[in-house]
Amino acid sequence: MTHSEFAEYLQVQRSAIDRALERSLRVYHGQTLTVFKAMRYGLFPGGKRIRPTLTLAAGEMFGGKQKDLLPFACAVEMIHAYSIIHDDLPAMDDDDLRRGQPTAHKVFGEGMALLAGDGLLTEAFHLISGPQVLRKLPAELVLQLIHELSHAAGIAGLVGGQAVDLEAENQDVDVATVEYIHVRKTGALILAAIRIGAQVAGAKPGDLRRISKFGEYLGLAFQIADDILDALGVTVTGERAESDHNELKKATYPSVVGIVQATERLQELSRQCDRELAPYGNMAERLQAIAEHVVARAIRQREAQ
Amino acid sequence: MTHSEFAEYLQVQRSAIDRALERSLRVYHGQTLTVFKAMRYGLFPGGKRIRPTLTLAAGEMFGGKQKDLLPFACAVEMIHAYSIIHDDLPAMDDDDLRRGQPTAHKVFGEGMALLAGDGLLTEAFHLISGPQVLRKLPAELVLQLIHELSHAAGIAGLVGGQAVDLEAENQDVDVATVEYIHVRKTGALILAAIRIGAQVAGAKPGDLRRISKFGEYLGLAFQIADDILDALGVTVTGERAESDHNELKKATYPSVVGIVQATERLQELSRQCDRELAPYGNMAERLQAIAEHVVARAIRQREAQ
Repeated sequence: MTHSEFAEYLQVQRSAIDRALERSLRVYHGQTLTVFKAMRYGLFPGGKRIRPTLTLAAGEMFGGKQKDLLPFACAVEMIHAYSIIHDDLPAMDDDDLRRGQPTAHKVFGEGMALLAGDGLLTEAFHLISGPQVLRKLPAELVLQLIHELSHAAGIAGLVGGQAVDLEAENQDVDVATVEYIHVRKTGALILAAIRIGAQVAGAKPGDLRRISKFGEYLGLAFQIADDILDALGVTVTGERAESDHNELKKATYPSVVGIVQATERLQELSRQCDRELAPYGNMAERLQAIAEHVVARAIRQREAQ
Repeated sequence: MTHSEFAEYLQVQRSAIDRALERSLRVYHGQTLTVFKAMRYGLFPGGKRIRPTLTLAAGEMFGGKQKDLLPFACAVEMIHAYSIIHDDLPAMDDDDLRRGQPTAHKVFGEGMALLAGDGLLTEAFHLISGPQVLRKLPAELVLQLIHELSHAAGIAGLVGGQAVDLEAENQDVDVATVEYIHVRKTGALILAAIRIGAQVAGAKPGDLRRISKFGEYLGLAFQIADDILDALGVTVTGERAESDHNELKKATYPSVVGIVQATERLQELSRQCDRELAPYGNMAERLQAIAEHVVARAIRQREAQ
């Protein structure tokens, strides 16, 4: 896949995901509550939609249909959007800007932003437990996917990672703690996004194991790349561009092992990602391109400085 | 049911619910994260466990087994506990005390309390999508119940009610707005607790409609009783005893229509509750006793003053 083919691919997926997000909120058509506006503000325009794109790519790789995958892709993105709104709150990272725009609590107030996050998290589970999903997939599978997604989002995953990250602020931490945080705070939802896509598509156990390995490596790579770009003053996804949370000392890979070792670790993870996908050849082209995209910008930026 | 029989009934249910909550968290045995401690702090010792008791009572009335009902009762209580933690935060009601104890953010800090609430909300869905539940009930039914619970907890229910309540602070509101808030903020989860119990037990459509009517009346009665006791300086459930949120002007029934009319409305709702349960005779004894308990304390307190 050339660079421009990949850019177009991302754009097409993003449009499909945005349309599906709009459809999933159509049930609230005419809803005039401020909290609904705040939820929409957290969801749109969004970033590059990498997580839901991973759900689609992993699912399509195993023969899944986009229309079956989209509700789960949307639920993953809603959980990501909720986590960003809560993470930006003054009680957490206290960010005024996100992707160059005022954060939700700056626009709607802290209480409303808190509730908008709660609303998005709840809506994720409401969406994938609904009749539209049940018409397409066996109920047992849908339950299993809800169980996995809530595991990834809960204290064994995202919430747990955020909590340890919060406690690590302004503390001296070691590499193990940084990896612990990264694997949960960022990795768990990326892994779930990929595994859910594969399972919707009916991936066999051996394939699911392999793709899960890929997901684990990618999740960690994603956060290390973000850390490196942050340390260099740019970001991999644009998601934290112009954030002002740098007053806090956060637990990051480069801050603990230095930027040289962090870059080496990222390259190692990139090779591990490739190795897991190798057996699938062209079938894995999209997942491979996403992984390359995540890693390459950090490496290029590093080399340019 | 005599007063002492009812007190014993509540105590027995409470013990069963507390044991089930402990069992449901056993999967996190050995978890030393602060956020997990904060989640436990929000769950234990808890209040009277009225909502999960309603799930059990509604389910048992239609022949449901306690062991099938308990996971759902626990999920309802987790959502209640999360909503309390978030509601007490400075960005919301800013309460320092809850049931005579320091609120979660006073003990663990705001960020950790925020995450503990997120964790409890997520855990509710994790619990009822798990294999223990699936072994007992058809997957289609479990999905339907997750859909209902997330509806009640989301912007069409609890989150929506909280949001309008937040906007109504220090505003002049009418009765319709107060009822709108009450029906969502308090009523939706009470209604869901009851409906979920009935559906786990396999209640027939006609019975489900009738018990839903009862749930709607009870949910509104619950909040009006709470408002009346609040206005008189005591609380129906002890849940908001010694809260210090009275600096804010909140949208309550007595503040809008006066305590006399609020009490009349409560008595009317009490009669409507009784009327829906009447066809079930002794089978509805427990639900009836809970409804009476909710209403009677407010009425007694009103008459005593």
